[in-house]
Amino acid sequence: MSVESETVSIGEFEFQCGETVADLELAYETYGDFSGDNAVLVCHALTGSAHVSSRGRFEEGDQAYAWWDDIVGPGKAIDTKEYFVVCVNVPGSCYGSSGPSSTNPETGEPYGPEFPPVTVADWTEAQRRLLDELGIPALHAVVGGSVGGMNVLEWGKRHPDHVEKLVPVAAAPRLDPQCLALNGIARRAITTDDDWNGGHYYGGSDSDENGATSDGGTHPDEGLALARQIGHVMYFSKASMERRFGRRAATREAERAFPTDPAGRFFPYRDVESYLDYNASKFVERFDANSYLYLTRAMDNYDLSSGFESDADALAAFDGEALVMSFTGDWHFTTQQSEALAEALRETDTDVAHHVVDSDYGHDAFLVEPDNVGPPLSDFLEEGLDGNAVSDTKAVESESSDFAPVHNSLFSR
Amino acid sequence: MSVESETVSIGEFEFQCGETVADLELAYETYGDFSGDNAVLVCHALTGSAHVSSRGRFEEGDQAYAWWDDIVGPGKAIDTKEYFVVCVNVPGSCYGSSGPSSTNPETGEPYGPEFPPVTVADWTEAQRRLLDELGIPALHAVVGGSVGGMNVLEWGKRHPDHVEKLVPVAAAPRLDPQCLALNGIARRAITTDDDWNGGHYYGGSDSDENGATSDGGTHPDEGLALARQIGHVMYFSKASMERRFGRRAATREAERAFPTDPAGRFFPYRDVESYLDYNASKFVERFDANSYLYLTRAMDNYDLSSGFESDADALAAFDGEALVMSFTGDWHFTTQQSEALAEALRETDTDVAHHVVDSDYGHDAFLVEPDNVGPPLSDFLEEGLDGNAVSDTKAVESESSDFAPVHNSLFSR
Repeated sequence: MSVESETVSIGEFEFQCGETVADLELAYETYGDFSGDNAVLVCHALTGSAHVSSRGRFEEGDQAYAWWDDIVGPGKAIDTKEYFVVCVNVPGSCYGSSGPSSTNPETGEPYGPEFPPVTVADWTEAQRRLLDELGIPALHAVVGGSVGGMNVLEWGKRHPDHVEKLVPVAAAPRLDPQCLALNGIARRAITTDDDWNGGHYYGGSDSDENGATSDGGTHPDEGLALARQIGHVMYFSKASMERRFGRRAATREAERAFPTDPAGRFFPYRDVESYLDYNASKFVERFDANSYLYLTRAMDNYDLSSGFESDADALAAFDGEALVMSFTGDWHFTTQQSEALAEALRETDTDVAHHVVDSDYGHDAFLVEPDNVGPPLSDFLEEGLDGNAVSDTKAVESESSDFAPVHNSLFSR
Repeated sequence: MSVESETVSIGEFEFQCGETVADLELAYETYGDFSGDNAVLVCHALTGSAHVSSRGRFEEGDQAYAWWDDIVGPGKAIDTKEYFVVCVNVPGSCYGSSGPSSTNPETGEPYGPEFPPVTVADWTEAQRRLLDELGIPALHAVVGGSVGGMNVLEWGKRHPDHVEKLVPVAAAPRLDPQCLALNGIARRAITTDDDWNGGHYYGGSDSDENGATSDGGTHPDEGLALARQIGHVMYFSKASMERRFGRRAATREAERAFPTDPAGRFFPYRDVESYLDYNASKFVERFDANSYLYLTRAMDNYDLSSGFESDADALAAFDGEALVMSFTGDWHFTTQQSEALAEALRETDTDVAHHVVDSDYGHDAFLVEPDNVGPPLSDFLEEGLDGNAVSDTKAVESESSDFAPVHNSLFSR
């Protein structure tokens, strides 16, 4: 397939907060060929990158690399032989787009905590600007999971006439306070790490595009590791953790990457701890702590209804079709939140289906269950809500009720 | 009522790990008068103390002070006019019983990380030794919530002939890997705090009995605060957090107790963060970081079936009655885990009821729903499983099924 991976400058950019940077850089990748009406924007999750699909440099287990390789590619659900796929690293991140670890061209130093706060609205506007640069006036679809699904909703809110289909996957109009609490604790872990130093921890040399550990600075790795571990637990369900780890001890080779005391060594180092520790140690190599602060704040702050009366109101101008997908075992972005979103869209007579995948994989399901995510997504992109594999909670409701013989949804099958 | 609050030495004590201390001290309180067969042992939760009921020095919101004041007292569910209530601070804690922050009489210095690792079995044996000292050969009941409920189960396992009634509340035979993960992250937050210093952070002067901040040492407060916050989220449910905090900003006076950056100040400091931060700041004043490591390890390590073939096997020798209580909104210790425990007891023909309280308060429900906890507990202590307010999942099952006209439980009403 034809793949382009580039970083472009879109010039001065004013953020939602009112601050500007002189020159916003955006790292993006495109897959396939643009035919005029086949562009699909894919929005990445919190710590993802523009690198949505593999092309030989796939590294397993690393969300930043080819994070949706099972879904995006030639002959896959988002078929790059058919669609022109664009994925952009969001501003504030550390995978090539401007963010705290990038060099401020005006000072020659990393922005650090002087980088403007970013919001999901900023991500959306930056994407819109990039698409203008690429000569793409309108999108066939915007698809994204987790906070990437919030990015999808923001497209429907801000540019309802420039997108035909919205697919928020494992997303929500806003986070609930349980998740806000956990993200707040994660940020506190970073900012109370002595090495955070008010966000000024970058060394003299420029940080590279795959994180910021090669710049000679002493980074708040311990705080970022804790933050990642808290996040990681949010991506699993109880059932998936039971299946994957149970209570068993780690293999003999596994050693704690951090201090413990003699009493601690009396107890087993468990597989679940070892797994989280190992992943955290990989994560701090690839991700920037300040970016973690910036992006979790954008996620926490997101509220679809902001500036409107309600979620329904915020999406009232969108008259395309929407496929809302959720997973029964997901407690980070729940099926109930997706159903509320679908209800908001139904309120405004938007053509919507809420496709619930019965899965006990937790939030990760949108990444690890391609066999269940792919078919409805593929059919929806191709045929809309009439797509064969697309189901809707509203239709299921009426089918399972003895007293609802009449289809109460245009989209029930 | 008659209340005694004392600290006694029970002499040399060998821990399950094989290590000994020359002189184990136990802080305990008793309420009411002992009549020979009316002793009720109440087991506290992770960060609780022997001070289960108030007597004028009640401080609201502090679990260590009168943590079950709504349940234990004259005329209350565990009626101290009728029962002789004993509550003992567990070894390893920091409320008067020997633990890492206590002075090692052999060195004149705090034990610190040289204090032996403690287990729920150690707690149980220390309680047994104390009861011997007090001249209490057998117990009418052992009652406890959360890890205190694990302590209850250990009584049934180790001393089945010395207790008539077991009441594990919001407990489980063992933690699931999700909770193990969160506790592991909490411990990592403590041990990666530079001030933890391998557990040697106590100052020169003795720590006092209400924590360890007055000893002149620099304690790992930031790590302990994070640990507490992670734990705190585990005590709430999504519903209780939604009701209590929603997504609203904190009041104007609230200020973060830890560093943030300019970008952070663009976003609201939320009520839920402010609440967790405030509580963490109170917690680090009252609790010792090493004790937090020790006690969470005891909880994580607890496995009722340990040394036996199964949970049923472990409790097979107990021939008294058991009331298992759980709460529908509790994700720390779930209703499913309590049902599995009840099933294990049913397998060995133990007289058991599993009383499920429909509550969306989360794990905290056992502390904050006295109107729902009190009546079944009170009736069970008085009349056993025939008690009027005692319900059983088994009975409910048969009642709600069209095809189960025959009582399939001895204890259905």
